[in-house]
Amino acid sequence: MDVLLTGFDPFDGEDTNPSWDAAVAVKPTGYRLTTLRLPCAFGDSIAELREALATRYYDLVVSVGQAGGRTDFTLERVAVNLDDARIPDNTGAQPIDEPVVPGGPAAYFTGLPVKACVAALQAEDIPASVSQTAGTFVCNHVFYGLMHLVTTEHPGLRAGFVHVPLSPAQAEGRDLPSLPVETTAKALDLIIRTSLSTSVDLRITAGTLH
Amino acid sequence: MDVLLTGFDPFDGEDTNPSWDAAVAVKPTGYRLTTLRLPCAFGDSIAELREALATRYYDLVVSVGQAGGRTDFTLERVAVNLDDARIPDNTGAQPIDEPVVPGGPAAYFTGLPVKACVAALQAEDIPASVSQTAGTFVCNHVFYGLMHLVTTEHPGLRAGFVHVPLSPAQAEGRDLPSLPVETTAKALDLIIRTSLSTSVDLRITAGTLH
Amino acid sequence: MDVLLTGFDPFDGEDTNPSWDAAVAVKPTGYRLTTLRLPCAFGDSIAELREALATRYYDLVVSVGQAGGRTDFTLERVAVNLDDARIPDNTGAQPIDEPVVPGGPAAYFTGLPVKACVAALQAEDIPASVSQTAGTFVCNHVFYGLMHLVTTEHPGLRAGFVHVPLSPAQAEGRDLPSLPVETTAKALDLIIRTSLSTSVDLRITAGTLH
Amino acid sequence: MDVLLTGFDPFDGEDTNPSWDAAVAVKPTGYRLTTLRLPCAFGDSIAELREALATRYYDLVVSVGQAGGRTDFTLERVAVNLDDARIPDNTGAQPIDEPVVPGGPAAYFTGLPVKACVAALQAEDIPASVSQTAGTFVCNHVFYGLMHLVTTEHPGLRAGFVHVPLSPAQAEGRDLPSLPVETTAKALDLIIRTSLSTSVDLRITAGTLH
Repeated sequence: MDVLLTGFDPFDGEDTNPSWDAAVAVKPTGYRLTTLRLPCAFGDSIAELREALATRYYDLVVSVGQAGGRTDFTLERVAVNLDDARIPDNTGAQPIDEPVVPGGPAAYFTGLPVKACVAALQAEDIPASVSQTAGTFVCNHVFYGLMHLVTTEHPGLRAGFVHVPLSPAQAEGRDLPSLPVETTAKALDLIIRTSLSTSVDLRITAGTLH
Repeated sequence: MDVLLTGFDPFDGEDTNPSWDAAVAVKPTGYRLTTLRLPCAFGDSIAELREALATRYYDLVVSVGQAGGRTDFTLERVAVNLDDARIPDNTGAQPIDEPVVPGGPAAYFTGLPVKACVAALQAEDIPASVSQTAGTFVCNHVFYGLMHLVTTEHPGLRAGFVHVPLSPAQAEGRDLPSLPVETTAKALDLIIRTSLSTSVDLRITAGTLH
Repeated sequence: MDVLLTGFDPFDGEDTNPSWDAAVAVKPTGYRLTTLRLPCAFGDSIAELREALATRYYDLVVSVGQAGGRTDFTLERVAVNLDDARIPDNTGAQPIDEPVVPGGPAAYFTGLPVKACVAALQAEDIPASVSQTAGTFVCNHVFYGLMHLVTTEHPGLRAGFVHVPLSPAQAEGRDLPSLPVETTAKALDLIIRTSLSTSVDLRITAGTLH
Repeated sequence: MDVLLTGFDPFDGEDTNPSWDAAVAVKPTGYRLTTLRLPCAFGDSIAELREALATRYYDLVVSVGQAGGRTDFTLERVAVNLDDARIPDNTGAQPIDEPVVPGGPAAYFTGLPVKACVAALQAEDIPASVSQTAGTFVCNHVFYGLMHLVTTEHPGLRAGFVHVPLSPAQAEGRDLPSLPVETTAKALDLIIRTSLSTSVDLRITAGTLH
């Protein structure tokens, strides 16, 4: 099984991005892993992802982003057709209320078995939950772009997006939750293995009240 | 101008729901206000809302729900076609991964000028922001149902959803943010007036990084 | 009854400080109010407070500071004999692990009826709680200095410290709790009136598990 | 070197307490470890600790407690002479505003090199900080009792208190931070080793603004 795992460049003044640091620290067990570092940039990020998918066949694509302030690994459930950038991306672009794909549907649901992934992580004493929003910055942009590529160019490809907490070094002095990068790498491997081995997602609740 | 403002019954073991307590405390200035208390119940809530919309003409519908843990008034931007109940609703129903409307689109965007509303609240020293998820419980259910009714039965009707923080009494001893119900009532009036007077929303950023 | 209410200069890059903005917005009912704006500076802040207390008689002194991230009005219970500055004060001083008063006791308890104050605020639908730490920056410095002045120079003077949340303008875009300055001013008046009228504090729980 | 590491019984309706689960999972490297499980009970907890210290000589005592909601390992800096129980302890006792030790000083500072411990944890990619309050429940009670025992009966004994976050299983569905118990055990070993090898604490800032 061939798996593409993408992480991001650092952004927002950070020196590191745990999505990438953890991606390259994954020790794949039972699958072939390709890692791809995406720029934190509207447009270019999807273009690079599109090219990677056009160049080689993958059974699974997991895109990963940093979510400062979140307490656990969050399996994103829905990508929204909206760019609304609170800060400029790494190229200085700051779209406001523009669609990721003009004319695309308002949203796509993930292709990952998000509940089976949460259960697998929790079984290993790793905190995890399902998230109902990937925001409106480059993470959601890539997530929506990925699901649009699946729908329009790679039907049947299993794909989705995961947000990871800050690393302890990033959280220092800011009273924000964090997890060791080693734990994040272990979590990404578990998410990949669970996604490869699960054909029908679990029917357990993982919703939020608001 | 005729405005329908809906709040909810208390749920999750609470005795009160600030969405309703504040709705009935609104002092309308320049519009006629009808308030409707919806049951915290999948299905029935939308049915009651549908009947209210069928019975009388409204220029604007604002549905309001309680969001325990949020720090400010959140103008919801997107409703998702998904019920995933972490807890049972007030009738004991607990749907998991079911669509609000079978065959409906994955999501609807709000019909409210959410950014103009946020700006109007901030100008009055009231904390507010745009939210990218209304969750997957009865609030999102009503929001999606409302936008589906607008699309299919009441085209042109301006409508949307707002989440309000807990009241101070609810937050007591739980280290959760809260706002006085008087402030919430003032906020709802401002949201209504801004929605009635704004034809094109402001083009300012109100996105989230994740 | 003569009351001294102190607030602080803005610090940490902020343009405003709600402790001061609210102090000057208090409308005193039944007491004479003097307000004093303290510099956000180790040493100088206590010196100015000491001078104010030496110049005129007060029945009550309430010092107020800003607590970014807190959800409610927090009546501080204990001042610690320790300066440990995460950031420089407004004069550039950044003491690390130094006593506020060399040779002073490790801590002083507040002289305010903190539980009666919390109850009075909650009765007016204003969120409040007791806090067990005022930090180790200038707020705790002033609180400790104030209680030391009471002990050594003004025995019998009722005095204490209150932290207030950010204003909505300060919290904008940062996902931090905030309260309107109008609410903060109302809260400070209630705290003053309750402190003046309460001789024995209520015996209700207001502790924290950690 | 002989080290006593104490954890607590589960409390507040929990089935587990990570302070104990991690304590027994510590693999000591370079010291002899004794673990002691304390009851979550005012009075009895200190009595059992006192007996343990009377029975055998220790070079270091580290008491550990659970801090639900905290994001990292927190080295407690100050113990306060105050019991104020928000909930009953495991025996049903709920003291309000009573001293831990009648006539004792208002507070004791920790005997651990808390900043060296924080630095050692961060160097291993483990999140940590110094805390200025251990609350007013059984954790602070034990911490104050321990420091009082050191002062009155075991002068020279190095001792202190550490709070640890929830385990992932405890945090499930509650949107609270957590860390794997394996990480907590690793952190406790590092804290012990750093405390044994550090004679003078680091002079780096670890304070809080409030």
